[in-house]
Amino acid sequence: MVIRMSYRLLYPLRTYLITSGDYGSEYNVMTADWVIPLSAKPFILGVSIAPRRYTHTLISKYGEFVVSVPSIKILDDVWIAGSLSGPAKLKVLKLTFSKAVVVKAPIINEALANLECRVIDRRDYGDHTLFVGEVVHTHSKSEAYVDNEPKIDAGFLAHIAWNRFITFSSEELKPRT
Amino acid sequence: MVIRMSYRLLYPLRTYLITSGDYGSEYNVMTADWVIPLSAKPFILGVSIAPRRYTHTLISKYGEFVVSVPSIKILDDVWIAGSLSGPAKLKVLKLTFSKAVVVKAPIINEALANLECRVIDRRDYGDHTLFVGEVVHTHSKSEAYVDNEPKIDAGFLAHIAWNRFITFSSEELKPRT
Repeated sequence: MVIRMSYRLLYPLRTYLITSGDYGSEYNVMTADWVIPLSAKPFILGVSIAPRRYTHTLISKYGEFVVSVPSIKILDDVWIAGSLSGPAKLKVLKLTFSKAVVVKAPIINEALANLECRVIDRRDYGDHTLFVGEVVHTHSKSEAYVDNEPKIDAGFLAHIAWNRFITFSSEELKPRT
Repeated sequence: MVIRMSYRLLYPLRTYLITSGDYGSEYNVMTADWVIPLSAKPFILGVSIAPRRYTHTLISKYGEFVVSVPSIKILDDVWIAGSLSGPAKLKVLKLTFSKAVVVKAPIINEALANLECRVIDRRDYGDHTLFVGEVVHTHSKSEAYVDNEPKIDAGFLAHIAWNRFITFSSEELKPRT
């Protein structure tokens, strides 16, 4: 028996911010928990987004997006980006943006990393669309990564449900074997 | 500039166990960090697996798999399932298995949840294959979930890199707004 909201059995999941559109004219930012690496070389990732989202419209129009990695420091903005809809939220956010290197969607200055992506495939599954993007440029902060490996005290953010978030423990675990 | 292993910028990621094959004859278990919900209703998820994996062969052959949710209590087995290859690892693991309800692949008794999946699509992206599965049956433990929402003290496991793992903080975070 599959019951409602059973996708929560995969939670807590990391939460990310997705920017889309053209920073020079129309753009948006939303939160997304449904993000996955799909290939190491080349680096390809997927983001699953509901069709009712303005971000869905913008990614479909421009064929580009940015996956940003928020920290607990910008939790309030992560919540606003996920609970308000459309570009009006941009006026409420304290986040600041900059022009990306390759894509038209902006990067987020406060993010621990920004991954610029170009859409190479899209597939509709149930009530969402999976946008598959090749990562064409990456930005990361040394406070959060060493040689691209995450530092566990960087305040990475995960989502439990609704307005409940969490970060990681400060203690690493290693198998005995 | 995209540098090697830049997919680690999305880490730490939750780590899961994937079972595949037929519990009555040939089956396997492996760890996978690359798992994503793809639709809420119906509940569809994706698992990205490299073609060299025995699990890739078994999912391709049987068209079914199970996503299991490990806890820190079975970290040693999670590591073995991820670092040894092929069915020989089954002799080393302390994990125990049971017959699933719908699919031929087994469920893991020690897991916090088991999600039985039937493959509805597969796509090759770069060096991995995304197997898309509709969830046809779920199992979960009340020690880890309340109404399908995760309890933060259940010891959910995430992967940093190689043999470095982590769990979540015991303190929930809520936005002010």
